[in-house]
Amino acid sequence: MSELTAGIIIIGDEILSGRTQDTNSNFIAKKLTKSGIQLKEIIVIPDKEDVIINSVRNFHKSFTYVFTTGGIGPTHDDITSESISKAFNKKYIINSEAFNILKNFYPDGEFNKSRQRMSKMPEEAILIPNPLTAAPGFILENVIVLPGVPSIMKNMIDYVFQNIKKGKPKKILTIKINLFESAIADKLSIIQKNNPKCSIGSYPYFNYVSKTGGVNIVVSSWELENLEDIVNQIKESIKILGGKII
Amino acid sequence: MSELTAGIIIIGDEILSGRTQDTNSNFIAKKLTKSGIQLKEIIVIPDKEDVIINSVRNFHKSFTYVFTTGGIGPTHDDITSESISKAFNKKYIINSEAFNILKNFYPDGEFNKSRQRMSKMPEEAILIPNPLTAAPGFILENVIVLPGVPSIMKNMIDYVFQNIKKGKPKKILTIKINLFESAIADKLSIIQKNNPKCSIGSYPYFNYVSKTGGVNIVVSSWELENLEDIVNQIKESIKILGGKII
Repeated sequence: MSELTAGIIIIGDEILSGRTQDTNSNFIAKKLTKSGIQLKEIIVIPDKEDVIINSVRNFHKSFTYVFTTGGIGPTHDDITSESISKAFNKKYIINSEAFNILKNFYPDGEFNKSRQRMSKMPEEAILIPNPLTAAPGFILENVIVLPGVPSIMKNMIDYVFQNIKKGKPKKILTIKINLFESAIADKLSIIQKNNPKCSIGSYPYFNYVSKTGGVNIVVSSWELENLEDIVNQIKESIKILGGKII
Repeated sequence: MSELTAGIIIIGDEILSGRTQDTNSNFIAKKLTKSGIQLKEIIVIPDKEDVIINSVRNFHKSFTYVFTTGGIGPTHDDITSESISKAFNKKYIINSEAFNILKNFYPDGEFNKSRQRMSKMPEEAILIPNPLTAAPGFILENVIVLPGVPSIMKNMIDYVFQNIKKGKPKKILTIKINLFESAIADKLSIIQKNNPKCSIGSYPYFNYVSKTGGVNIVVSSWELENLEDIVNQIKESIKILGGKII
């Protein structure tokens, strides 16, 4: 197990109503795995102050890093920054650096009140630059606050990963086979029992037209340097069962 | 607010590692919204017994319905059914109805131990038929247990929604405009304040090639019969600000 852990809080009524498919958590999850940080939990919550406060406090205590996306835009339903200020009992104030970035970004006379609102954040927040639309995210203690629009968020995440501690990446190897999950389950279970330092997952795929299918077997470990032995054991078992590696 | 609420628990290491993009929660979320059931929270958790037990107990107490997906297949990492048995202090036993369904589904001699495992569930579980691959899901108290493979899960969900209580669907109207969020934020905020029984959300869209963009404004309410008045107020404001409804 990695010593570094993370939780992701996706904030937005539009995800819970089904209007929007969340893709931010998957994007961040991949980055975390590559960076040797173990993602332990994702939650999706509404734009509701008490829920945001409770979730942020809970995740802050539980994980090395907490990522939030959503709710830092200029409209009345963007309440993430203020809620996070409250979660940490920090003042919710205009950040002068953010204010200047936004003032320079907008044409003269167009830096209106709503836009100025995007410079308000908890005192002591450290800015995350936004190369696309200027309005910064921020880091407060171990909480990393990002916007919800995926294209904007994705342009800000590299900066974050350049500035946080990374661990040894998880080793992951995948074997795709043409046997169904239930044909290989017994063998996999034995190999898993004999190798407790790795995790063996099996993920079925189906083609309903050709009525074929099989399994992706994923062998992963935070600790082991070498997974080849285990992978070879699995491959051998597949062959004995009459299956093919694809 | 709808009196009927729901929570979704997505169970699977493959979601947290970023290997798999979860689409099940979005599919179920849409069904819930249409059925007048308010989705309050989604969590993604690993295939870990204590985490599943705690999450299921917590959601069971908090919401009218709890949906879980993932972890009910035939392999060693499929521990959802056993964990849910433990969460409710129920025996984890072979369900004879499920056993017979599976026995009839597989060719003679192929109903092996791993496949038989898919008939084990908490005592008193009510089966959810699986027209595609036979292995049933189940309902225990208010917890609805579904498989993780999206194509299989989607073929089982209609049965679930035919058998649970539904509420009055949320009224939802969307206005797409060509102004940026920050141009309309002040006006929207006033209209929201004057109409507390509806919820006004704003969701920006961008086209970085043409450097154009705008906002989808979503007006929704569980209570109001008619949202036309509010929508017209918003449309008027957009026109006054020089914007267009698209």
